[in-house]
Amino acid sequence: MEVAVARDAGDQPASSQNWVVQPLLTDLYQITMAYAYWKSGKTKEHSVFNLFFRKNPFHGEFTIFAGLEECLKFVKNFRYSDTDISYLRSVLPASVEPEFFDYLRHLTTEDVVLHAVDEGEVVFPRVPLLIVEGPLVVCQLLETTLLTLVNFASLMATNAARYRMAAGKDIRLLEFGLRRSQGPDGGLSASKYAYMGGFDGTSNVLAGKLFNIPVNGTHAHAYVTSFSELEELQNKRLVPRDGGEPVDVLERALAWREKLALVFNVLPEEASAGELAAFLSFAMAYPNGFLALIDTYEVYRSGLLNFCAVALTLNDLGYRALGIRIDSGDLAYLSRTARDMFEKISQQFDIPWFASMTIVASNDINEETIISLNEQEHSINCFGIGTHLVTCQRQPALGCVYKLVEINGKPRMKLSQEVEKVSIPGRSACYRLFGKDGT
Amino acid sequence: MEVAVARDAGDQPASSQNWVVQPLLTDLYQITMAYAYWKSGKTKEHSVFNLFFRKNPFHGEFTIFAGLEECLKFVKNFRYSDTDISYLRSVLPASVEPEFFDYLRHLTTEDVVLHAVDEGEVVFPRVPLLIVEGPLVVCQLLETTLLTLVNFASLMATNAARYRMAAGKDIRLLEFGLRRSQGPDGGLSASKYAYMGGFDGTSNVLAGKLFNIPVNGTHAHAYVTSFSELEELQNKRLVPRDGGEPVDVLERALAWREKLALVFNVLPEEASAGELAAFLSFAMAYPNGFLALIDTYEVYRSGLLNFCAVALTLNDLGYRALGIRIDSGDLAYLSRTARDMFEKISQQFDIPWFASMTIVASNDINEETIISLNEQEHSINCFGIGTHLVTCQRQPALGCVYKLVEINGKPRMKLSQEVEKVSIPGRSACYRLFGKDGT
Repeated sequence: MEVAVARDAGDQPASSQNWVVQPLLTDLYQITMAYAYWKSGKTKEHSVFNLFFRKNPFHGEFTIFAGLEECLKFVKNFRYSDTDISYLRSVLPASVEPEFFDYLRHLTTEDVVLHAVDEGEVVFPRVPLLIVEGPLVVCQLLETTLLTLVNFASLMATNAARYRMAAGKDIRLLEFGLRRSQGPDGGLSASKYAYMGGFDGTSNVLAGKLFNIPVNGTHAHAYVTSFSELEELQNKRLVPRDGGEPVDVLERALAWREKLALVFNVLPEEASAGELAAFLSFAMAYPNGFLALIDTYEVYRSGLLNFCAVALTLNDLGYRALGIRIDSGDLAYLSRTARDMFEKISQQFDIPWFASMTIVASNDINEETIISLNEQEHSINCFGIGTHLVTCQRQPALGCVYKLVEINGKPRMKLSQEVEKVSIPGRSACYRLFGKDGT
Repeated sequence: MEVAVARDAGDQPASSQNWVVQPLLTDLYQITMAYAYWKSGKTKEHSVFNLFFRKNPFHGEFTIFAGLEECLKFVKNFRYSDTDISYLRSVLPASVEPEFFDYLRHLTTEDVVLHAVDEGEVVFPRVPLLIVEGPLVVCQLLETTLLTLVNFASLMATNAARYRMAAGKDIRLLEFGLRRSQGPDGGLSASKYAYMGGFDGTSNVLAGKLFNIPVNGTHAHAYVTSFSELEELQNKRLVPRDGGEPVDVLERALAWREKLALVFNVLPEEASAGELAAFLSFAMAYPNGFLALIDTYEVYRSGLLNFCAVALTLNDLGYRALGIRIDSGDLAYLSRTARDMFEKISQQFDIPWFASMTIVASNDINEETIISLNEQEHSINCFGIGTHLVTCQRQPALGCVYKLVEINGKPRMKLSQEVEKVSIPGRSACYRLFGKDGT
């Protein structure tokens, strides 16, 4: 999370990591253990910890490793502050010797060596993603925070990569999940690592600002429902793209809607007047980037008809509309219907680009939905994906663990009554074997 | 999230809200819509938005409303900074008029009125949790952030309350989920709202420091595996509770283990020497608070036996051990076995408190596990709960929405082809009806 710290001082980021990523962002037992190690004279024993997971998420065959950049920043800046020490004094038993707190106050990670897989690499179960080597106490104190930084980042990047594989490379994928994420920073992590996993952009503006990720968005249903009649359109005139006298777009759009009603085989007055007013006002604000949400009332008889009337009006003035978004209903059917109408209009009025306008779909999309929509031969160009992507609904946590594998050169292991939890002791090195044909 | 902002300047929090909670923590379409409203002269239209959810989470019958405090701070401090405005200039189309950015720069929430349910209240579907009333543009710009702040907080508090109901009021519940949470702040939110939902504490030290939540923790498996033989115990002497000459605790513990092996009906040499060394060193660090993780090797033959030997040694010196934690295996069976042995030892050696030592269980606990353990008549006193609690695995997002219900005094609604998405237009007021008997 490259979330800057200070917003007050001239609005300049004072640091490049989220303030909450700090040594106290850990489980208390790391610190109670640290004291016991300290009391036992074991602080400097040379230890090796492996950070790895036991199973690929989502019943899948791979994982994308992510979060390394944040881990490096955390390890580099690891240092307890004075208020951290005061707080720890207040929660540890009174019997803890004061010298321990002096020891903590001056603890640094200068003797820690980190080996890691590259960020964004495809990884597999039991392969060490991070190997943390150094004095026992410091390595132990890093555990929880490193796990927190790797677990969700890798899960998210993996989830995004799976959506990308399901959608294919020609479909645009946008992350729309902020409001359903696990809090503010959960949302930022989701945007960042979805982009790393193969998404094209996000709706999250702060993620765009902080991480330089492309941001996207047009309007919500509320924009449409905020207009109820054509009279609410205060300004009805738009200057054509190449200049000249402003044109009354309402008049044109109504004329187009009359004509299109015949093509659609509907009555023009069945379409919502408020929706047409909303679309026109939006088109006048963004004549070069008009993309409308067409399912506020009824997709075919109202949203699509009104949209096409406005798009053709813009076309008269030299502008090209971008397309539509559908946020409910049978997305395969509705997208095919919309594409059919775009093609029909394209031919009938000889406007080639009209046939290839963008169709965005965004209602509760997940990996299975995309696969099922593919089978139904949808006509969607872009998916906006929220809840399922950012919460990783099918498996909301990657179970990375951090295990002591060696101490003072001696291999270590934990036995377990659950056989899949037993890990191989000693340092690990992993090799990927390629056949003669490169696979 | 009462996460302070500045860590540099004397380590004093400069603000009481997580820095990432700011006006740009929103979907871009809120801002593209704001421009279209501005262009249409609708910025000041008086609007009313309701924030509500449509279904209780977890197939349940209630929801706990949480996140209000954060919402109030966000609304109060709502203000775009200069760099926010520069960033927005760079992402909105070049055709957007410069006056719009001046307008945004000076936008405040002074005309917004918020009505809300009390934080921590039990709430139900379609009841407005927040009613946001004021100028259309400002109310619209608050949407995503308010949803982000309410959705996860309420989901988490509800999840925690369900665990509390499953466990009953006499069991201690501790949140251990930081490492499996959705990033650093996801972890902090989880700790805060689990506490609000009825948990007794957390392992997350930063949550303890920031929110004044009780923190808990002892040691991990790594502490045990870091010792491999008795010789590693550098210090073997502990001063009794009431003072006097230090006593050799290793000698005593070995003697107790010999005796206990007969009670356990095992061979003392089957127990791990490294584990005994680890327990002794930990007990010497925390003679008044000894709680040991007993499943590193084998619960009955090693962990429990070694623990009891150390606990009886501490007892000889006037200290009382706290208990054990079990992190794998059949928790009902193992907890009953441990309780049986505690009771046997309590009787045999006439140490009444020994029978009622704490048994903590912590392996992948969820609501169903607790209910099933209840049926199996476990002997657990405390659950440490991570993944399932903090990710809300069974339903990782509460689907709160934010709907325009009135504009300039006129009721508004969105129709939908999905009938359960249709909301009642106009302002809502909700009443809870009580029968004569108060139910």
